[in-house]
Amino acid sequence: MDPQELLSLCKRRGFLWPAYDIYGGVGGLYDYGPLGAALKSNIEDYWRKLYVLGEGFQEISCPIVAPEPVFKASGHLDAFSDMYVECVSCGETYRADHLAKGLHDNPVTLNEQQLGKLLKENGVRCENCKGELTTPKRFNLMFKTSIGAGKGKTAYLRPETAQGMFVNFSQVYRHAREKLPVGAVQIGRAFRNEISPRQGLIRLREFNQMEAELFIHPDDKTWPRFRKVRDEKLPFVPNTGEPKTMSIGEAVEKGIIANEALAYFVWLTYKFAVDIGLDPSRLRFRQHEKTEMAHYASDCWDLEADIGYGWTELVGVADRGCYDVQAHIDHSAADLTFFERFDAPRMVEQEVVRVKFDALGPLFKGRAKAVGEALGKLPPSTVKGRKEAVVEIGGEKISVPSSCFEVCLQKEKVSGRKLVPHVIEPSYGVDRLLYSLLDHAYSKKEDYVILRLKGLVAPVKVGVFPLMAKDGLDTIGLEIHEELSAAGFVTYYDDSGSIGRRYARMDEIGTPCCVTVDYDTKADGTVTVRDRDSAEQVRIKREKVPTAVGALLSGASLKSLSKL
Amino acid sequence: MDPQELLSLCKRRGFLWPAYDIYGGVGGLYDYGPLGAALKSNIEDYWRKLYVLGEGFQEISCPIVAPEPVFKASGHLDAFSDMYVECVSCGETYRADHLAKGLHDNPVTLNEQQLGKLLKENGVRCENCKGELTTPKRFNLMFKTSIGAGKGKTAYLRPETAQGMFVNFSQVYRHAREKLPVGAVQIGRAFRNEISPRQGLIRLREFNQMEAELFIHPDDKTWPRFRKVRDEKLPFVPNTGEPKTMSIGEAVEKGIIANEALAYFVWLTYKFAVDIGLDPSRLRFRQHEKTEMAHYASDCWDLEADIGYGWTELVGVADRGCYDVQAHIDHSAADLTFFERFDAPRMVEQEVVRVKFDALGPLFKGRAKAVGEALGKLPPSTVKGRKEAVVEIGGEKISVPSSCFEVCLQKEKVSGRKLVPHVIEPSYGVDRLLYSLLDHAYSKKEDYVILRLKGLVAPVKVGVFPLMAKDGLDTIGLEIHEELSAAGFVTYYDDSGSIGRRYARMDEIGTPCCVTVDYDTKADGTVTVRDRDSAEQVRIKREKVPTAVGALLSGASLKSLSKL
Repeated sequence: MDPQELLSLCKRRGFLWPAYDIYGGVGGLYDYGPLGAALKSNIEDYWRKLYVLGEGFQEISCPIVAPEPVFKASGHLDAFSDMYVECVSCGETYRADHLAKGLHDNPVTLNEQQLGKLLKENGVRCENCKGELTTPKRFNLMFKTSIGAGKGKTAYLRPETAQGMFVNFSQVYRHAREKLPVGAVQIGRAFRNEISPRQGLIRLREFNQMEAELFIHPDDKTWPRFRKVRDEKLPFVPNTGEPKTMSIGEAVEKGIIANEALAYFVWLTYKFAVDIGLDPSRLRFRQHEKTEMAHYASDCWDLEADIGYGWTELVGVADRGCYDVQAHIDHSAADLTFFERFDAPRMVEQEVVRVKFDALGPLFKGRAKAVGEALGKLPPSTVKGRKEAVVEIGGEKISVPSSCFEVCLQKEKVSGRKLVPHVIEPSYGVDRLLYSLLDHAYSKKEDYVILRLKGLVAPVKVGVFPLMAKDGLDTIGLEIHEELSAAGFVTYYDDSGSIGRRYARMDEIGTPCCVTVDYDTKADGTVTVRDRDSAEQVRIKREKVPTAVGALLSGASLKSLSKL
Repeated sequence: MDPQELLSLCKRRGFLWPAYDIYGGVGGLYDYGPLGAALKSNIEDYWRKLYVLGEGFQEISCPIVAPEPVFKASGHLDAFSDMYVECVSCGETYRADHLAKGLHDNPVTLNEQQLGKLLKENGVRCENCKGELTTPKRFNLMFKTSIGAGKGKTAYLRPETAQGMFVNFSQVYRHAREKLPVGAVQIGRAFRNEISPRQGLIRLREFNQMEAELFIHPDDKTWPRFRKVRDEKLPFVPNTGEPKTMSIGEAVEKGIIANEALAYFVWLTYKFAVDIGLDPSRLRFRQHEKTEMAHYASDCWDLEADIGYGWTELVGVADRGCYDVQAHIDHSAADLTFFERFDAPRMVEQEVVRVKFDALGPLFKGRAKAVGEALGKLPPSTVKGRKEAVVEIGGEKISVPSSCFEVCLQKEKVSGRKLVPHVIEPSYGVDRLLYSLLDHAYSKKEDYVILRLKGLVAPVKVGVFPLMAKDGLDTIGLEIHEELSAAGFVTYYDDSGSIGRRYARMDEIGTPCCVTVDYDTKADGTVTVRDRDSAEQVRIKREKVPTAVGALLSGASLKSLSKL
């Protein structure tokens, strides 16, 4: 499906508007018009149903603005960047690696100098004005801002919703009354200050994510519900061997997918995608190449859809190991562990700092007791093998020579242990899902467009048309419109123009069915119900309309309506 | 209700967490935990039901990041600021007008010099360290950022969702097939870089709004549905005269509220507030003082609630006149008008640019025709009385002396006219509504806390408890839990600890009812249903549970359940 044709429909019919158009627009920013916003809500609501009601994940909502330390810890401050070049004449900027396409197998792996040299040697110039380009510079893709007056605190707009859940692990864990596994989800905006975004909804500077973080025991990634779905077959593209459709049970057994929990959420993602209406024959799960895998991920599968832009990632499902939570432990010194209670208490040998009070006494005299106590509380790893340890007493830092302590092993009875949870993360791009839905739903015969959106996601559920806007037909039509609205169906009432044009308008925005009031309605109390995809109609009793519409939206056939 | 006590409950029970707590937190930023996020969603969903399904407003969704010209036009760039002072020793910042409380009747009216003098004369110093304070400086409250690499474009995080709807007026109008009145709504984040926020959810740097913009004919602010509700009585505090409870019909008749449309949305706001559970005896509608009214508003009413912070604004309902749309017309030169079709064509006299071709010919020769045509298309107001006009032909700017044109009146038959719409804006602060709900719902007897949240908004709808986690009671409990979840009720299953403690836990988070499975359940298939507010119980058949829970949540009495 040609993106330009689809985007043009989207703009014309109120799915999508280029943002700030009256001020010339801004690349990578779109408004969702009434139909787009409704489609987006419907996608999010169904996702929430699966994850929150279905799987028991806790939905939370964190701020978009976050202080710098969060992203120092997450790695975004150091590693979330692309290289750009600027035209010295017209000022246009370009992603440097995009300009190097065809000149190198994998330009992302080059550094600034190498990439600059490559572009220069190949005579690459500004696409606008043929001007000379600067040498590539790294550009951090987070939007930067500052919190508070005066100097303020450096802050960024979150590049993903995930970090809000990682930093809140302890809160989420406590809310679940300290049981693992526990999952958190967040639906919301994320930001990526792209250098020159040019792919509509696929590459946005401000986008919508639905992310789930499942915190799980590092040594137990089994999943009870896995058993129920182990025979479900999915189209896989593993990073070793050939693409193959196989069951998720087989994939786990053969070690193609790392563990049950990961496989379960790969399956759930596929189910979600098919349920909302993506075409199964244009979906696949591609495993990241070992070289492509983010530094934190131990296994990662992308749900990809075949759309006008080629195979495009819509969802990533990754086992992130302990990377994220550990990173925040290291940077914040907060205790983001969970407690694993042993079945029975165990004797364990662990390192402790043993204070040698006989050496300490003469050195510190009256303060020896306080120094000794502080010394005993230091983490053994921080003083082991050191020539001195530093303790703080009443704000004063005191250096203690190693003659006063030793690190030794000690046996202790413990009831459990603290562990850093691992994380399984299904991360969904809402805008890409929405765009792909439109791409797969679009069908055209000559100039007639039908958007075959499922009832579950269609922004308008039903059109209501009086054949004429007179003779009381309009009054009946408006009554049906109100009844359907009260029953929770988004309804479009239209009483102008030819009936064929009214149907066409609804077909083009994906409305699954239409109800038409005609002169027979006045005579015998029946109306016609028309199904979008077959264009067929049945007559039913007027009072059955809400039930009939509900049934059609849930996938019932038009024929079955006559039995209502 | 003491805010500290309420906030403490909120943190303990997962309504609210201080954001980025592991990094020391950031003032004015909170996370919604699972219960807070659900409560927020429920408030938003009901609002959407009233405005989108009920009143037919179009919901749209615009980006948070917006380029500078939008806020130059809206006035935020020049006028959205507070004054701050900074401690020269410790660097702490303060709202300068807050420090002047008690020293001046209305410190906001002072300029930097006056306010600085006032603080100095009164010996005001840093509250932290008694250090000296700088002189007050203006600080724009928008978060600033930049779009794109290189120089980038200056941008801001939106301080309100409203501007996204104003700049899209033409799109919204076209989507409504060019009929007025038409309304747009947006639910989403907005940002205000407060200098030193210290009031929990009442003063946030990142907050949630639900805003509606009704575009309406400037000369016709009647509203058909007004008739149905004109006798509804509301507690008003007009800016002239005494506080008085009166019908909105009376308020409009007496000119206390400016027009029907404004009065209708004042009423709808009150209905919304009471429906979600705010205490009517602690609500009032206060009219802005003439001096307090924002420069754009011709009439403005605030819904205020009496909460722990005193009377607090939750919603503003304003007639903004044509201010916003006109501002964007002036700054963007876009045509943000609507077309009013006359009942019959009218002859009107209007200014036109008449080209004097006899003078133009000799001056411009071969290009005279092109210049003349361009000249004729210029808006008359831009050349009237000028010594020259400038036209653009093929990118070249050409100056034309006034001898070649004149602006004169011309009679013309026209079918209608272009007008700038007026705007009625109900603007809701979600976080303040949420906090006020908790404040009004909180009740305490000795140490026992009950949160009397209505079923409509309660984050957890029902608790399900097996008396014992054995003898199959837990199995039945889990089945009921699944049935209720499948029916769409957020359910909390709990099988540990005493039953009294389990009830207490649910009472404290506002769960309206609980279902308990005991040994009689196994014998006769009945369960107990307990009502939170009365703490009374009834036994009902197990299979009636989803229906009974649905009825209770909609306000049915416990007694009526036995008749199910």
